[in-house]
Amino acid sequence: MADFIFHPTTKVYFGKGNLPSLGAEIAACAKDILMVYGGGSIKKNGIYDKVMEILQKAGVDVVEFNGVESNPRLSTVRRGTDLAKESGAAAVLAIGGGSVIDCAKAVAAGAVYGGDPWDLLSYKVPAEKALPVFTVLTMSGTGSEMSSGSVITNEETKEKIGLDNPCLRPKASFLVPEFTYTVSPYQTACGSADVISHFFDFYYFAKADNLSMQRSIMESIMRTVVDYTPQAIKEPNNYEARANLMWAAAWGCSAITDSFAAGASMVLHFMEHELSAYYDVTHGHGLAILMPRWMEYVANDETMARLFYRFGVNVMGVDASLGEADGVKATIAALDQFLFDELGLKSRLSDLNIDEENFREMAEEACRLNGGKLQALVPLTAEDVVKIFTMCL
Amino acid sequence: MADFIFHPTTKVYFGKGNLPSLGAEIAACAKDILMVYGGGSIKKNGIYDKVMEILQKAGVDVVEFNGVESNPRLSTVRRGTDLAKESGAAAVLAIGGGSVIDCAKAVAAGAVYGGDPWDLLSYKVPAEKALPVFTVLTMSGTGSEMSSGSVITNEETKEKIGLDNPCLRPKASFLVPEFTYTVSPYQTACGSADVISHFFDFYYFAKADNLSMQRSIMESIMRTVVDYTPQAIKEPNNYEARANLMWAAAWGCSAITDSFAAGASMVLHFMEHELSAYYDVTHGHGLAILMPRWMEYVANDETMARLFYRFGVNVMGVDASLGEADGVKATIAALDQFLFDELGLKSRLSDLNIDEENFREMAEEACRLNGGKLQALVPLTAEDVVKIFTMCL
Repeated sequence: MADFIFHPTTKVYFGKGNLPSLGAEIAACAKDILMVYGGGSIKKNGIYDKVMEILQKAGVDVVEFNGVESNPRLSTVRRGTDLAKESGAAAVLAIGGGSVIDCAKAVAAGAVYGGDPWDLLSYKVPAEKALPVFTVLTMSGTGSEMSSGSVITNEETKEKIGLDNPCLRPKASFLVPEFTYTVSPYQTACGSADVISHFFDFYYFAKADNLSMQRSIMESIMRTVVDYTPQAIKEPNNYEARANLMWAAAWGCSAITDSFAAGASMVLHFMEHELSAYYDVTHGHGLAILMPRWMEYVANDETMARLFYRFGVNVMGVDASLGEADGVKATIAALDQFLFDELGLKSRLSDLNIDEENFREMAEEACRLNGGKLQALVPLTAEDVVKIFTMCL
Repeated sequence: MADFIFHPTTKVYFGKGNLPSLGAEIAACAKDILMVYGGGSIKKNGIYDKVMEILQKAGVDVVEFNGVESNPRLSTVRRGTDLAKESGAAAVLAIGGGSVIDCAKAVAAGAVYGGDPWDLLSYKVPAEKALPVFTVLTMSGTGSEMSSGSVITNEETKEKIGLDNPCLRPKASFLVPEFTYTVSPYQTACGSADVISHFFDFYYFAKADNLSMQRSIMESIMRTVVDYTPQAIKEPNNYEARANLMWAAAWGCSAITDSFAAGASMVLHFMEHELSAYYDVTHGHGLAILMPRWMEYVANDETMARLFYRFGVNVMGVDASLGEADGVKATIAALDQFLFDELGLKSRLSDLNIDEENFREMAEEACRLNGGKLQALVPLTAEDVVKIFTMCL
């Protein structure tokens, strides 16, 4: 087991009964806040009214910043930052999914910085402080509600960049499973693909032999996703299914998993960031398409094959007696079946009207942003990335 | 899934490479500290020197309080509290296992309270604040290094009482697997029995159907203990075995598991506390003797039987095709075999020179301290507790 530092500071309030504590949590550190949300669905489903009532009772004054898009853009972060500064907000409350929370985090850092937020996002200037961030989660998947990361797209340069700093970690997050009842089957499927991809990417397939306890916990979380996503899609109001998915997602990419991160890499995320930067693909869908094809591409590596097989047996229910070679094939087939049949996601980039036109440029950009190569157990050059993109067509 | 609040605030530094950060962590909040430890083994194995060097470099002044016994006593807490007050300590550093850490926590609370620490431990006066607590762990099992609890024995009244308050949670804990290399096979076995008992007690067998993800994670942790304890006993210097056991124990009874605690009860701990209060039994050994016999006693309950069977299949490697009735028997037999054959713990209270003399008094005391009955899925009266003690003879 490699050395690590583990410090999950976000206070999680789980369940509807705990939502009223939002008032006291925010009031303890801010009288004026910027409230960040998306396209307004929270007004239709009643979440907006519930939160506003709690904030009013607590004497918190709210300035609203809405219209945050999925794959949130630098221009949006700039506008939010300006508004936070003008309004003198002392904290930022995000109500939404990963895009809204990521935008709120970038705004929270931008609001205490004198210059352009892109300086921070592009690591030109270290982001060392931020306004306190609170979240009310309405969609599960990214794990941003407990993580220290924020991913923003610079639409001018087509760069999608992740900023990571403990100062961005939410101070408190409110996870109310009922608030995800209205998440569509498509978005539910994308969220679950995202959760699985976090383990693929960062941890499970990172290093070979020194993560026994952590791998076993990761398998528990992934199995939870595999078990409950079909149920949440069939019965959107099933509390247990939504609750299990919500809690699994929060563990997917957070300080909880810091102890898992020995040899972490982000191969899949770096490839997917190009897809969503160029084509505004829904993050989880891009990842779903990439995962099984990446597995096929690197399955010849001995360690990878062993880990794929373990994943197949312990998460996907692959027959342990198959032996490794057949087991790996069965694992990839089981993942395909889960993502594309059970969850109903389209399996090909061509289904999303993406062709090979930009593959070379995207692959080179992914590698350029990460030191020339996507470093992992099996490192990928731009050439490799083009091949994997092509396998996804 | 029941509502919960999840707030694991302890910063964990895992691995030898992180130990030097102890200096800066403590210096950031205290110039003068009370350093609490046990019988002096840390002087023999070099841990004392390493820590003192780090503290000296950081300019931290140390007053030492040593000689903390296992099952730490109120009189010890009183002496430590007096010394903390006299010396003007602004923080408490525990170097040791659960007993030392529990004592340090009680001292940390006592040091900021005007009266007798027993007022706090007996809940006469709420413990709302404490000096910051830091720990360097030298023995795994109790999970005190990440938990908000402290268990102290009042040797005059033979009461063993657990105080629980977030103010007792360590600010930072340093987990160095090498520091447990000198832990004896017996203490290693007792620590592992303690870890498993935490899940038995608080969570795994607490409620029936709404803890899917949590149960799966608990199984991962318990399986880690079952896999690695025999190895750590055979090869005391095996880093991976010690590291996995250390990290598993920290998760056993901590804020991490707050989300698991729906319907939590402490049946086994409450029974064991009587054993160690009357006979100074090693906590984990008492628990090891009680666990399988308690299972036999309550296995007729339908929900219990189902959960025992799940535990058997997913943790103890019991054959899933056995069916429930035979499966439960096989599960208890597998646990007996693990604790008493593989780990080499003596299986009977009579092996520890305990007879039935005090069983009635102990059973009544356990129930009296907990509202008349040990509340759990299958509640236990004093009569039941006497029967279980007798089964352990």
